[in-house]
Amino acid sequence: MAQHQNRRVILKERATGLPKPELFETVEDDAPSPGPGEVLINNVYVSADPGMKGWISVARNYASVETGTTMKAFSVGVVVESNHPDVREGQVVAANTGWAEYVVADPESPTFRTVNPDDAPISTALGILGINGFTAYCGLLEVGQPKPGDTVVVSTAAGAVGSAVGQIAKIKGCRTVGIAGGPEKTALCTEVFGFDAAIDYKATDDMDAALRASCPDGVDVYYDNVGGTTLDILLGQINLHGRVVICGTAATESWIPQPAGLRPERNLLVNRIRMEGFLTFDFVKQYPQAHTDLLQWLKDGKLAYREDIAEGLETAPAGLAGLYAGTNKGRQLIRVRPDPFV
Amino acid sequence: MAQHQNRRVILKERATGLPKPELFETVEDDAPSPGPGEVLINNVYVSADPGMKGWISVARNYASVETGTTMKAFSVGVVVESNHPDVREGQVVAANTGWAEYVVADPESPTFRTVNPDDAPISTALGILGINGFTAYCGLLEVGQPKPGDTVVVSTAAGAVGSAVGQIAKIKGCRTVGIAGGPEKTALCTEVFGFDAAIDYKATDDMDAALRASCPDGVDVYYDNVGGTTLDILLGQINLHGRVVICGTAATESWIPQPAGLRPERNLLVNRIRMEGFLTFDFVKQYPQAHTDLLQWLKDGKLAYREDIAEGLETAPAGLAGLYAGTNKGRQLIRVRPDPFV
Repeated sequence: MAQHQNRRVILKERATGLPKPELFETVEDDAPSPGPGEVLINNVYVSADPGMKGWISVARNYASVETGTTMKAFSVGVVVESNHPDVREGQVVAANTGWAEYVVADPESPTFRTVNPDDAPISTALGILGINGFTAYCGLLEVGQPKPGDTVVVSTAAGAVGSAVGQIAKIKGCRTVGIAGGPEKTALCTEVFGFDAAIDYKATDDMDAALRASCPDGVDVYYDNVGGTTLDILLGQINLHGRVVICGTAATESWIPQPAGLRPERNLLVNRIRMEGFLTFDFVKQYPQAHTDLLQWLKDGKLAYREDIAEGLETAPAGLAGLYAGTNKGRQLIRVRPDPFV
Repeated sequence: MAQHQNRRVILKERATGLPKPELFETVEDDAPSPGPGEVLINNVYVSADPGMKGWISVARNYASVETGTTMKAFSVGVVVESNHPDVREGQVVAANTGWAEYVVADPESPTFRTVNPDDAPISTALGILGINGFTAYCGLLEVGQPKPGDTVVVSTAAGAVGSAVGQIAKIKGCRTVGIAGGPEKTALCTEVFGFDAAIDYKATDDMDAALRASCPDGVDVYYDNVGGTTLDILLGQINLHGRVVICGTAATESWIPQPAGLRPERNLLVNRIRMEGFLTFDFVKQYPQAHTDLLQWLKDGKLAYREDIAEGLETAPAGLAGLYAGTNKGRQLIRVRPDPFV
């Protein structure tokens, strides 16, 4: 087999706060060799995800990255070597690999899947037809369980997950209210992603009143990507038997020490609210159905999405840091090499 | 129909903190008359319940009592007049009525039920075979959903609900750990109610360490009757996909202003914990099954319970206040008149 020179980004140091580019380093070495049953992928796109803050934090998490190893990431690329009978060279595949040009993956992994480049741009396999779409779909429908007529509030509503949540909720017959930072993002919410209302939390000094005005019938589902004081306020406005999907905690920079907020238990008790942590990987069995529905909605023109694609693997750490500064204009991807399908 | 002289306890003033006897007043007037389809009950026992703090609070709640009206309470008594074809005079019935000698009730109400005085002392209709047993049964089994081998932690574990939760969890094959205040109550937990371990929170200056020692495999279900800092600590020890049943918030004296605690959302997210408010009245359809199971377990000697019975309706406000001081020695009931079955 041909030996490929590889470039990859490793984690040098774990984060105590927001991810900084200095925590990472780009290294060059030989590409790994796939073992029995494995495949070698030449990545085209890798992602920068808000959840990565937790993966590299010194605090415990569901998906830690060890120092000295390649930073984990979602990726889509082309198989260049296959030791698996069902995967052939040249196939486009999405997998959970890392910030690297060449990666080895196991096609038996539940998150490995083939991608049809005729369906949509292959970059969508990392966004609306991938982790973001699946996260929105499973978190909203499986945990949030919206009913037609419900009011669904979403934070980071202009983001890749939030915008998908809002649009899926709309497809399911709900009233949708987005929370985002800045007039550009709130305009995206209402004009591109079809939210019924959007609140600019940066321009609002009374979130409680702003929410009440946008949610005259209260809130039935809160899909929460931020936590913090926004969650505190929402909990006071959740209707009887409402649901809170805890999908992210972007509003809190560091969990060491654990910060204080308003006690939630009385709100939970009085209105019998269910507040539940959600991790998309618990729902991989629903991914095929999610993909089927999302692709159909995409083809029907019911799902808008936005991407912000940076050039070159070495830009990944800065792309990650930019997420928390809100500088990205859509799903933050990194193009590792020219996309062979555009 | 005979006109009965009535005595009842009314709420004079709503509470901003713990219920004080001065908030109530005993008044005398004529007994009410049952309307079409209704019955008149001569109560034998009424209850004092920890949840009453919320019912009379100035803060919003699921079951508010208005000033000037009879204090709501659970009751068991004898029907003295019936306008309902399925209820006859002399029948023993449990209902949600109030602190009064004579009360009118609607047999079509979902919480109205007849009581067989041959099954057990009729006072148990307000405890282990009534609201406490149903609350424990439905909250634990429907919301907590324990599996054999799970570790179930219960607060106010020596109390009427907590002790039933622990015993039902034990019957379901769980390891049970009780939290209670004082050596007398922890001894009750392990010696009378069969908990595998009990923690005296008043004698422990490191609850985190005490819980870890008592729960070497972590916590799968926390049945929470107190909230507050105990909940904060528990949330750091709940296992993957653990459940927290929010049944009461006794540790917090006042919710105005809403007090601060540790932010829960990161714990919920990392371990995908479900934290859910529980109100027993949402599960009245399960009460008949709960009664069947609880009665069988009681007859099998698998369910211990304790009662603390005060004499005379006028003692009810003091009995209620005593709950929060922890002076009661079991389910706090008030005997309104001599029990005709003992």
